[in-house]
Amino acid sequence: MKLPLTGIIPPMVTPLLENMELDLDGLERLIEHLIEGGIHGIFLLGTNGEGPSLSYAIRKQLISEACRIVNKRVPILVNITDSSLDSALEIATHAKLSNADALVVAPPYYFPISQQEMTDYLEVLAPQLPLPFLIYDMPSCTKLHLSIKTIKRAKELGAIGVKDSSGDMTTFYQIIEEFKDFPEFSIIAGAEIFLSDTILNGGHGAVAGGANIFPRLFVELYEASCAKDLEKIRLLRQSIIKMHSTLYNLGNTSTKSIRAIKCALGIMGICSDHMAQPLSRYGAQNREKIREYLGQFEYEGYYKTSL
Amino acid sequence: MKLPLTGIIPPMVTPLLENMELDLDGLERLIEHLIEGGIHGIFLLGTNGEGPSLSYAIRKQLISEACRIVNKRVPILVNITDSSLDSALEIATHAKLSNADALVVAPPYYFPISQQEMTDYLEVLAPQLPLPFLIYDMPSCTKLHLSIKTIKRAKELGAIGVKDSSGDMTTFYQIIEEFKDFPEFSIIAGAEIFLSDTILNGGHGAVAGGANIFPRLFVELYEASCAKDLEKIRLLRQSIIKMHSTLYNLGNTSTKSIRAIKCALGIMGICSDHMAQPLSRYGAQNREKIREYLGQFEYEGYYKTSL
Amino acid sequence: MKLPLTGIIPPMVTPLLENMELDLDGLERLIEHLIEGGIHGIFLLGTNGEGPSLSYAIRKQLISEACRIVNKRVPILVNITDSSLDSALEIATHAKLSNADALVVAPPYYFPISQQEMTDYLEVLAPQLPLPFLIYDMPSCTKLHLSIKTIKRAKELGAIGVKDSSGDMTTFYQIIEEFKDFPEFSIIAGAEIFLSDTILNGGHGAVAGGANIFPRLFVELYEASCAKDLEKIRLLRQSIIKMHSTLYNLGNTSTKSIRAIKCALGIMGICSDHMAQPLSRYGAQNREKIREYLGQFEYEGYYKTSL
Amino acid sequence: MKLPLTGIIPPMVTPLLENMELDLDGLERLIEHLIEGGIHGIFLLGTNGEGPSLSYAIRKQLISEACRIVNKRVPILVNITDSSLDSALEIATHAKLSNADALVVAPPYYFPISQQEMTDYLEVLAPQLPLPFLIYDMPSCTKLHLSIKTIKRAKELGAIGVKDSSGDMTTFYQIIEEFKDFPEFSIIAGAEIFLSDTILNGGHGAVAGGANIFPRLFVELYEASCAKDLEKIRLLRQSIIKMHSTLYNLGNTSTKSIRAIKCALGIMGICSDHMAQPLSRYGAQNREKIREYLGQFEYEGYYKTSL
Repeated sequence: MKLPLTGIIPPMVTPLLENMELDLDGLERLIEHLIEGGIHGIFLLGTNGEGPSLSYAIRKQLISEACRIVNKRVPILVNITDSSLDSALEIATHAKLSNADALVVAPPYYFPISQQEMTDYLEVLAPQLPLPFLIYDMPSCTKLHLSIKTIKRAKELGAIGVKDSSGDMTTFYQIIEEFKDFPEFSIIAGAEIFLSDTILNGGHGAVAGGANIFPRLFVELYEASCAKDLEKIRLLRQSIIKMHSTLYNLGNTSTKSIRAIKCALGIMGICSDHMAQPLSRYGAQNREKIREYLGQFEYEGYYKTSL
Repeated sequence: MKLPLTGIIPPMVTPLLENMELDLDGLERLIEHLIEGGIHGIFLLGTNGEGPSLSYAIRKQLISEACRIVNKRVPILVNITDSSLDSALEIATHAKLSNADALVVAPPYYFPISQQEMTDYLEVLAPQLPLPFLIYDMPSCTKLHLSIKTIKRAKELGAIGVKDSSGDMTTFYQIIEEFKDFPEFSIIAGAEIFLSDTILNGGHGAVAGGANIFPRLFVELYEASCAKDLEKIRLLRQSIIKMHSTLYNLGNTSTKSIRAIKCALGIMGICSDHMAQPLSRYGAQNREKIREYLGQFEYEGYYKTSL
Repeated sequence: MKLPLTGIIPPMVTPLLENMELDLDGLERLIEHLIEGGIHGIFLLGTNGEGPSLSYAIRKQLISEACRIVNKRVPILVNITDSSLDSALEIATHAKLSNADALVVAPPYYFPISQQEMTDYLEVLAPQLPLPFLIYDMPSCTKLHLSIKTIKRAKELGAIGVKDSSGDMTTFYQIIEEFKDFPEFSIIAGAEIFLSDTILNGGHGAVAGGANIFPRLFVELYEASCAKDLEKIRLLRQSIIKMHSTLYNLGNTSTKSIRAIKCALGIMGICSDHMAQPLSRYGAQNREKIREYLGQFEYEGYYKTSL
Repeated sequence: MKLPLTGIIPPMVTPLLENMELDLDGLERLIEHLIEGGIHGIFLLGTNGEGPSLSYAIRKQLISEACRIVNKRVPILVNITDSSLDSALEIATHAKLSNADALVVAPPYYFPISQQEMTDYLEVLAPQLPLPFLIYDMPSCTKLHLSIKTIKRAKELGAIGVKDSSGDMTTFYQIIEEFKDFPEFSIIAGAEIFLSDTILNGGHGAVAGGANIFPRLFVELYEASCAKDLEKIRLLRQSIIKMHSTLYNLGNTSTKSIRAIKCALGIMGICSDHMAQPLSRYGAQNREKIREYLGQFEYEGYYKTSL
């Protein structure tokens, strides 16, 4: 695996059948859809992948199957975040056996913990990890917003990068500055809307949920950002902002974008759109709205090939 | 199991050796300590029991061993709360096989969910549970403060009671009023400081962390509350408030009372005081303070027998 | 003024005409309604009194007029909390000139400040106050939940008591214990639902918003609590809990109880129910519901005299 | 006043003497420092200007004096945000009389209010305003994060722009997109670190606290952003990020950047650095650190002229 990790690394949706088994055909189609779209890596079992909602058997099966299908065409990152250290290590071990490339670690998410407790946790966890890891800031789910000091300590303990889904760009820009002398340390935005800002300002990539739907849109925006082509950035960003104000904007649950992405993939015929509890797929009415919204994107032409 | 559940139901600490195996001798001593103290039930794998931090193997072993040792002398409640529905059901099934008496269910704790999503979750989960269940409000860890409407829906779906660890006594008192016509529905306080308020105002019991240390203190306070002996309540409550201002007041982590309880049990020679990540046991300095504090309680005489 | 302050001290609604002038006739009727109801003090310009929403001219006029009408029959407490120290002192000076009895001080409410900053603020403010003061914990509006240490420092700086509207009864009970050796220091609950708990456990009174509507209900509950008449407490508390689940439960604004109290006083013919921006009085539909709810209380008989 | 408002509009510090009177000499020096630095407008009585902490007499004097000194060389915006509508209108009237150019309105900041209550408030306030106004999103102080819908309603009620200090760039980018067809509606970033992102992505300017210290740095960054000179942006942004990790990073109060800016201006001999309660100026140790940090910027040369 070449460091730093760069580019578009979709937090891949986990295709599930109605009986909560893996939709293996859908998984294959989804992975090919992503790779054809030009993405640079795949992130398994993250928030968009409903990782913490799945049984461990399904988590392991997903890792094995995804690694088999991808077959090293792009790096695979596996989220091992868990309330239990043992369970995190169990998934880490399975990821290693399946030939995944890296692990991703957010704070254990039951107890509200402090920066110091997170650092102590990493000191126990990191030496036991069988693969390189990225540290993952996801305060809306874990209740802890990692400080720069904690991220620096993670780096000392071996972290090869940070995925920041905090939405706090003030700190994110300080993180980029903080690690600029370590060009192999990846700074990855967890929120797709900040993709171009991240690249223009010195970061390396984005774990973009929307890239599940429109991988090429995000890859093109990544490339335009690397090329500093401001006009192209402007045009492509408009579509992403439109995704936020349409597709991601149904209802008022905090997980509406996750629901929308899976629903869109179902409508596009890529994979089954069932979701693991406590999430559930959209009903007919929202499904119809998602279909309408998707249609609006088709006419813009950028990723017609995606559809 | 007689309904409603009443009395003192300690959220039992999970005794762990340094290698994170169960301290089986400690477990036996702890259970006998509690039962000799007169407690009315035992709650396994809750927040004080570090449930979400343990491996599933340890969780199952704890259930089996605790059920074997208790041998139906008091009811055993098992917390099955999990980010994954499948894992919750796995523990529920094991609890049933081990002859536990009831289950406890808080919201799945990774995604921030709404009241409606929690209700939907219960509608999927409840019919699959092999034992009666209590609904559990624990917003500081789960990010959702259950509404009265959600608790009412849980009751319709079969809940035999509610354990409220929200600290929100305004809502708690409304809950007591709401369910007063259902005398078999247990209203259980999750915060020990509210034990007498709960009983005097019509509730049924408390899941009192401190009862791990001083079971008789809490049992006596429960009995004094049932007897409406205000003078005895006043005296016993002072000790509990003193526990908050001494034992539970070291450092500034949100889990300081959990650490203190386990540390005290270690000092008292009842069980090993190792903790599962992301918590960790107190160092020498805090340990010494806990010892001093414990000494102050001895001289008050109420629960000298506990020590 | 006799210390400690005890009993029922309603946070008096500020009667306003449609043109936002004081409803002086209403003010007179409201004060007589409260005093006839047996209340032990009146708290002006608090959260229920919409203090921070009023012009300074109206605040001063209210103080003057209320002091004139009350004419020392009960002590008058004046909330001087303000984002500006100078404005707080201006109201304090006016309160002194009007012969009010005490002041009430919460944290200045624009900047989010720390415990240390609040202590520093009190060290500047307290020596300049022309009247005794109570410290006021109101985190939902001020963004700071006062620590016990801060309250102790306030006492050293001259505070004669604390009014706790935090809803955090765990800390409140520790506060009662903390100050039990200072019998002249008043511990006043800011949430009416905790009135009996407060008195039974050693506190002194309550700033009960609902006492604007039903002063005698709260006075009777206070007296029953002092007399430790548990059966009477039980009966009276039911009405207060019913107020929460009916009158205070319309809509989903955080200020719904404040709106309901003023609306009820309007319906009862006591005073005009206009409100200062950003609050506004209930429309016809909610007004009708409040009327219905009020009717349900009449039939319980306890405070028919109030209506 | 030309619309849209664009460029660097410092939230000007309010220079105060130890006796809390205005430092008029300092005010004059500060305004000349800003105008010489090339700023495009001045924002009075904002969060950095400690507006809500000042007496109304000082607020009015500051407006009068600043308008006199600026003498229409740049537009002056006056923050009228207040917990009281009347007091907001009083300052608005004074601003009009003093020949200020526009007003700025955030939610009234005592009661926690809803989007609907804010909209209702604007419907009452807006028609009474004697000058154009911008809507101001400042959730950390006001407890309400304005929705896009609320901002749209403010525009319908006459708002000429929005100043967004929420730190929530996801919404901010949607706001830019939402109003792109209204080129006279100003989209102003409230956080200086987002200046270049704002301009590159279609916004108009920044209310940059740090421009009090280094106006030219921010003006140059604004100009580089308008010119899409990415290399110059990169260099200048580094200094701003460095301000965050040095000057703005002392202690752990939420107001540390406000303290630092005033302290720096004191060290630079521009104005007195006393602060209104509840803030207070840094002590000798932090002051010395600020001096050291300032020295580090001198050597970078960009704004040596500022020092």
